[in-house]
Amino acid sequence: MDLLIRNAKILTMNDNMDIIENGTVAIRDDKIFYVSNNNIVPPDFSTSNVIDAKGRLVMPGLVNAHTHAAMSLLRNYADDLPLEQWLFDKIFPVEDKLTAEDVYWGSMISIIEMIKSGTTCFADMYFFMEEVARAVAETGIRANLSRGLICPSSDYDFNNDIRIKETRELFNNWNGKENGRIKVYVAPHSVYTCSPSYVQDTVNLAKELNTGIHIHLLETQVEERDSIKNFGCTSIEHCDKMGMFDVPTIAAHCVHLSDEDLNIIAKKKVNIAHNPGSNLKLASGIARLPEMLQKGINVALGTDGPASNNNLDMFEEIRLAALISKGFHMNAVLISAAEALKLAVNNGAKALGFGDELGEIKTGMKADILIIDTDKVNYIPENNMISALAYSSNSQDVDTVIVDGKILMQGRELKTIDEEKVKFMAKEKAKALINRV
Amino acid sequence: MDLLIRNAKILTMNDNMDIIENGTVAIRDDKIFYVSNNNIVPPDFSTSNVIDAKGRLVMPGLVNAHTHAAMSLLRNYADDLPLEQWLFDKIFPVEDKLTAEDVYWGSMISIIEMIKSGTTCFADMYFFMEEVARAVAETGIRANLSRGLICPSSDYDFNNDIRIKETRELFNNWNGKENGRIKVYVAPHSVYTCSPSYVQDTVNLAKELNTGIHIHLLETQVEERDSIKNFGCTSIEHCDKMGMFDVPTIAAHCVHLSDEDLNIIAKKKVNIAHNPGSNLKLASGIARLPEMLQKGINVALGTDGPASNNNLDMFEEIRLAALISKGFHMNAVLISAAEALKLAVNNGAKALGFGDELGEIKTGMKADILIIDTDKVNYIPENNMISALAYSSNSQDVDTVIVDGKILMQGRELKTIDEEKVKFMAKEKAKALINRV
Repeated sequence: MDLLIRNAKILTMNDNMDIIENGTVAIRDDKIFYVSNNNIVPPDFSTSNVIDAKGRLVMPGLVNAHTHAAMSLLRNYADDLPLEQWLFDKIFPVEDKLTAEDVYWGSMISIIEMIKSGTTCFADMYFFMEEVARAVAETGIRANLSRGLICPSSDYDFNNDIRIKETRELFNNWNGKENGRIKVYVAPHSVYTCSPSYVQDTVNLAKELNTGIHIHLLETQVEERDSIKNFGCTSIEHCDKMGMFDVPTIAAHCVHLSDEDLNIIAKKKVNIAHNPGSNLKLASGIARLPEMLQKGINVALGTDGPASNNNLDMFEEIRLAALISKGFHMNAVLISAAEALKLAVNNGAKALGFGDELGEIKTGMKADILIIDTDKVNYIPENNMISALAYSSNSQDVDTVIVDGKILMQGRELKTIDEEKVKFMAKEKAKALINRV
Repeated sequence: MDLLIRNAKILTMNDNMDIIENGTVAIRDDKIFYVSNNNIVPPDFSTSNVIDAKGRLVMPGLVNAHTHAAMSLLRNYADDLPLEQWLFDKIFPVEDKLTAEDVYWGSMISIIEMIKSGTTCFADMYFFMEEVARAVAETGIRANLSRGLICPSSDYDFNNDIRIKETRELFNNWNGKENGRIKVYVAPHSVYTCSPSYVQDTVNLAKELNTGIHIHLLETQVEERDSIKNFGCTSIEHCDKMGMFDVPTIAAHCVHLSDEDLNIIAKKKVNIAHNPGSNLKLASGIARLPEMLQKGINVALGTDGPASNNNLDMFEEIRLAALISKGFHMNAVLISAAEALKLAVNNGAKALGFGDELGEIKTGMKADILIIDTDKVNYIPENNMISALAYSSNSQDVDTVIVDGKILMQGRELKTIDEEKVKFMAKEKAKALINRV
C-alpha cells in the first residue's frame, strides 16, 4: 500500500540531524520509498492515502531498549522501598502467581502505553513470552523478545531445561516472523541469578541460534561487590571470558562499571541499555553515560519495567538522560539535546539488532514513524526543534504512529487495538492477581 | 455561583493524604462549600452546574513556586551551555530588547501551558510586571508577582529608583486584587546582582508594605564562593543579618547550603522554592532536599523560567524531586510519592502566602481544583493512586482546571483564553524579538 505524509517538517535523525522544513515522506508497504524537501509526489505513487502534517513534525519512532512490559500489572504496587525489599518481599511473590493470561493482558496494556507515547520498538525480557509475542504480532508493534532465564544452581540438564526449551520454541516460532518485526534473543537474567556454567551454556545457545543476548549487568553496588567476591573479577570480565560479547549483546543498566569494564564494552561493541528513571527510582545509582559515549559505546535508552519507573514514557527517559548527566557532573555541556534523542532512536535501533532498518527517515528504511503535534503551546515559540523535542516535549504530543508502514495510531486513536477492552481486562487481571498473593 | 463535582475520587491532600473513593465537592462562588464521601447534595445547593467525575481524580491545583513566565519567548533559544555563557552571551542580550508587549504575550502563552498542565498558582519574578498582572487578571489564574530588582551599585537614590517605584505601583495596583488572586512581593534579584545596601532597602520596603520577599539564593557554587569572599559569610547569613527572614520569604534554589544555612532557614521559617529540572539542566547542582524536609523546612517546587527547563510542567518537577533524591543519595526510601506531591501542593501554597486558603480539598478553602483523567492506560491498573500521580502521571492527563471557583479549562479546552490568538501572537513577538538582537 502507498501512504504519503505531506507538508511535514522532517527530523531525519541522520548523523547531521538534518531537518527538512517542508517535505514529503512516501511510504510503500513496510518501507520508506522516498523522502523529499518539497511536495512533489513520486511518479506512479498513489495519492489516495495522504496525511497532511502541516504544523507537525515527522521523526523516526522511539526504541525502548529494556523493559518487562507485563509488569504494568504491578505498576505502583510497591514504591519508595529499598531494592531488596521491593524485589524479594513485594515483586517476586506476585510474579510467582502470574499466569500466561496475565502476561498477555499486561503486555497489551503496556503496548498501548508505548504506542501512545511514541515507542515503536521495544526489547522485552520476561516469561510466558509466547504471550508477549502474540501481543506484538496482533498489535503491529516491533520487538526484540527474550525469555528471562534464571538458574543459580550448577546442577541442571541444559538440554532438558524447561526455560531453555521455551527459549528454543520462542526462537523457532517467532524469530524473524511478522515480516521481520520480531527478533528473539537469549536472556540469561544476570550473573547473580545464573550459575557460571548456565551463563556459559546460554552464550553457546545464542551462538548456535546465531542470535544475540539480553542480560542485566551491574545494576547495583551489591552485584559489583559480589562479582569480585564470587568470580574474582567484574561481571563484565566474567561474561567476556565466556565469549558472551562475541554475539550481539544488550547489557541493561551497567551503572557500576570500572574503567576496564568500559574498555571491554567499547572494544567488544556491547550495546548498553541505560535506564535513568529506574536507576534513580530504585536508588541503583547514576551510570557513567558521558564517558560511555566518549568511548564510542552504543548506548540505548530503556524505561525498565513499569513496576520500577512507573511508566513507559521514553520522552521522559530522553530528558532524564540529558538532565542527570549535566546535573550530577555539574557540567551543562554534557549530553546535548541531539545526543539524548539519538540514544532513543538510532542507538536503540542498533542495540536491538535493527540498525540497518531503523533509526532514520531515509529511503529504504522501514517505515517506523512518529508524527508529533508541535503546534502545542509547549513548543511555542519554535527557537530550536531539537531542543524542544528533548526538553519541552510531552509524550502525549505524539499524534500518529506508523510501524512497518502500517498506521497504529492516528489522532491519538488506536487502529489495531480495542483500547477499552484491554483496559478492562488489565484491571480485572491485576485485581485477581493481587488477590491470589 | 454553585458548581457540583460528583462521583469523584478525591485526593484531599490533608496531612493523612486521605482519599475519598466516591464523593462530592460542592463549590459556591470562589470557595469549597462542602466535601462529602457520598453523592448527597447539600440542601439549597443548586444542581444546575454539575461535573460528573466518574473514573477521574479530584485534587488541589499545583503551585509553581518560582518562574519567570515571559521567558517562554526564549524557550530553546540557548541550551547545553555553561550557565555564565548561557546567561551573559545569550539570555541577557535578548532580555535587553524585551518590550512590555513581549512580556504580556510571553506570560499569556506560559499561563496557557501552566493551566493545561495543572498549575493553578505561580510565583513570578520578572519586569514589565504590570503586563504579567494584566495577564493573570484576564486569564483567571492565581499568582504571587514581583518586579525583579537589580542594582549592583551602592550609589542610588532608593526613593527615586525607577524599579522601586514600579514595585510600589505594582503593589498598590494589584496586591490583594482580583478577589485576592494576586499578591505582590518585593524581589531583590540576588545578593550578587544587588549591593548590600540595596538589599537592605528592599527588606525595609517589604516591611513597610507588610508583604514578603522573593529572591534567588545560592543557586550556584560561584555564588557560594563569592559570598564568602565579598561578605565574609554565606548568602543566607548575609540576608539574615539584614532582617530579610523576618518577613515571609521565597528563597529560590538554595542548592549550595551549609549546615548552618539549613539551621537558619529552619529557624526563620524561610520557604525554599526547589527547582530540580532547572538546577540539573544548568548544572547548578543537586539541592539537599531530604535534609531540608527533615529539618521541617517548607520546601515548595518550581520550574524556573521556561528558558532554563524548558517547560512549565510541574508533574515533571514532582517526579524529578523524588527520583533525584533517591538516585543521588542511593536511598530509595527518600522522598516518597506523597512527600513529592505535598511539595507542589501544600508547601507551594504556603510558600506563596496562600497557606490558609489553598492546598487541601476542604470546606472553606478556595476552590483551586484539578480533575485528572485517571482512566488513561498509564494509571492502569490502579494499585496506588498517590504513587501513580507522582510516578506514572502525565501533565496532559489534567482534564479540568478550576481557579477561585471558576472553570478555566474543561475537557482540555480553555474557557477564558483565545488559545489560537495567543499562540499566533507569541510566535510573532518571539520572531520580532530575536530579529532585534
